[in-house]
Amino acid sequence: MNLGSCSKQVMGMDWSKRDGVSDISSSLCDFGDQCQFNVDFSRFVVVHGAGSFGHFQASKSGVHKGGLNQPLVKAGFVATRISVTTLNLEIVRALAREGIPSIAMSPYSCGWSTSERNVASADLLGVAKAIDSGFIPVLHGDAVLDDRLGCTILSGDVIIRHLAEHLRPEYVVFLTDVSGVYDRPPTDPNAVLLREIAVDEDGKWSVVKPTPQSMNKQVEITVAAHDTTGGMVTKISEAAMIAKLGIDVYIVKAATSHSLRALRGELRHDIPDDWLGTVIRFSR
Amino acid sequence: MNLGSCSKQVMGMDWSKRDGVSDISSSLCDFGDQCQFNVDFSRFVVVHGAGSFGHFQASKSGVHKGGLNQPLVKAGFVATRISVTTLNLEIVRALAREGIPSIAMSPYSCGWSTSERNVASADLLGVAKAIDSGFIPVLHGDAVLDDRLGCTILSGDVIIRHLAEHLRPEYVVFLTDVSGVYDRPPTDPNAVLLREIAVDEDGKWSVVKPTPQSMNKQVEITVAAHDTTGGMVTKISEAAMIAKLGIDVYIVKAATSHSLRALRGELRHDIPDDWLGTVIRFSR
Repeated sequence: MNLGSCSKQVMGMDWSKRDGVSDISSSLCDFGDQCQFNVDFSRFVVVHGAGSFGHFQASKSGVHKGGLNQPLVKAGFVATRISVTTLNLEIVRALAREGIPSIAMSPYSCGWSTSERNVASADLLGVAKAIDSGFIPVLHGDAVLDDRLGCTILSGDVIIRHLAEHLRPEYVVFLTDVSGVYDRPPTDPNAVLLREIAVDEDGKWSVVKPTPQSMNKQVEITVAAHDTTGGMVTKISEAAMIAKLGIDVYIVKAATSHSLRALRGELRHDIPDDWLGTVIRFSR
Repeated sequence: MNLGSCSKQVMGMDWSKRDGVSDISSSLCDFGDQCQFNVDFSRFVVVHGAGSFGHFQASKSGVHKGGLNQPLVKAGFVATRISVTTLNLEIVRALAREGIPSIAMSPYSCGWSTSERNVASADLLGVAKAIDSGFIPVLHGDAVLDDRLGCTILSGDVIIRHLAEHLRPEYVVFLTDVSGVYDRPPTDPNAVLLREIAVDEDGKWSVVKPTPQSMNKQVEITVAAHDTTGGMVTKISEAAMIAKLGIDVYIVKAATSHSLRALRGELRHDIPDDWLGTVIRFSR
C-alpha cells in the first residue's frame, strides 16, 4: 500500500508505550525537517474479522441469535465488543507503526445496524470522509443492534460487500492463510488452486482457469461439499456478489509478494502467470 | 450507578484475557440460571478526558492547531487517537468488569466534527439509541476533523456540554481529584470549598454558599486569577453553561461516598449538609 515509499523513511504513527517501554523517542527522532515522509497513500479501506477474538464471547452468550433483553446476551454483547475492539486497536497500532495513517472505525459505534441480519444502516459517509482526509479506515466484524432480533453479529465479509456496493472500489483483496481457493481442502496433497473463477449475471460461478477439461471432474461437487464448513465458502459467495458488481476480487495469501501485487493493483489489467492466487471476475 | 444491586451478584462483562491470564472461567461460572443479575441500570453517559494519554501526542504534533495536510500533524492525529482509544478501552473494560454494560463510542468515528473548534456534527442519535438499548455509552476527548482548521482536539468537557444541551439529563456530575471548586488552589491550606455557585441568565456566576459575608473578600479575584491555568476554570465555565440550561452540575471527588451520592441522584432536591462538593445551579 505504501506506494513508492521504498526509498523514504517510514514515519511511525503509534507513539504510545508498549508493555511499559516507550517507543516515543525513536519515533520522534525521525521528525527532523530534512526528512521526506510519504503520507500519500492509495485510497484503501481495511476490514478484518475477529480471528480468535470475539467468537468465544459471541457464541457462549448467543449474541448472534439476538435477545438483547436477556442478561447473558447483553453481557456477551459487551464482552464481544471489548474483545473485537481490543484486536482492532492492535491492528490499527501495527499499521500505524509502519507509517500507515490508520483510523479505527468500529461498526457498532459508527452506526452500523442490521434488520434480520441484513445491513439496515451503515456509516458510508464517515468512511468516505476518512478516506478523503487521507486516512485508512479500519473496520471489523462486530456485535451490532438488529431491529428485529435485538442484536446480532455483523461479519467482516458482509461489511466488505456493503462497502464495495456503495463505495465502488477498483478492486477488493481477501487476505487469507492459504494461496487462494482450491478445488478441495488445501491440506489435501492433490488440491488444485483455482486461478480464475467467473461469476455470471445470475450469481452462478464457474472455474475458468485451470480449464475445466484439464481438471478433475469432481471440482464442482467438491467445492459444494465445503458449504457446510462455512469459512472459505462464505468468502467465495460474498466475493461472487462483489464480482457481480464488476469489481474484481483477489483471494490471496497474506504477507506474500502475491498479496502485495494484488494490493498494489498490479493485477487490474492482466494476471501474470507467476501470480499465485484466485481472481473472481464478472463474466459479461 | 448500580442501583439497588448491593445484594446481587455482579456479572462481569469483560471476558478477555489480561496479560495472558484469562478471567473468562471465573466470569462464566457466575452464569448459572439460579443467579440474579442486575442489568437494569440508570440511564447514564460517561465522558472521560485524556489524562496522561493523548496530550503528549497532540501537543507534540500540534493536532489542536489544525493543518491535517502536514505530515507531522497527520501522524500526530493517528497517534493521538491510538492513545485516547487505548485509555477508552481500559475504562470500558474496568466498567464492564464491575458489571456495567459499557459501550465505547469514540467521537471521531461516531461522526463528531467541529467548525473552528465548535461542535458542527455529533452522534446524538447513536448515544440515545445505545442508552435505550440499556448500555452506558463511554465517550472521550478525541482528535476530530474540523471543516476550517482541518483537525482539532474536541475536549471531554465540550462533549458533556453538547450532550447535556441535546439529551437534557436530570443532572451532570464532574468527577475530579479534589473535593470540588475552591476559592484558591486546593493545595493552599487556607483554601475554602465553594459549596454552591449560582449562574444567572447572563452566564455570570457567584458564590452562594458559603455566604459572601462569611468569606474572604478576595474570592472572585482569586478565582479569576486561575483563568490562565485552564483546568478547573474550563470545567467551571462549561459547568456554568450546563447549569444555565436548568441542569444541576455537581463537581465532586471521584471514588468517595460523596461522588456516589451525586451519581445516584440523591442531591436532586436537597443538598445535605454533610455532602462535600460543589453544586452549580441556575438562579432564575
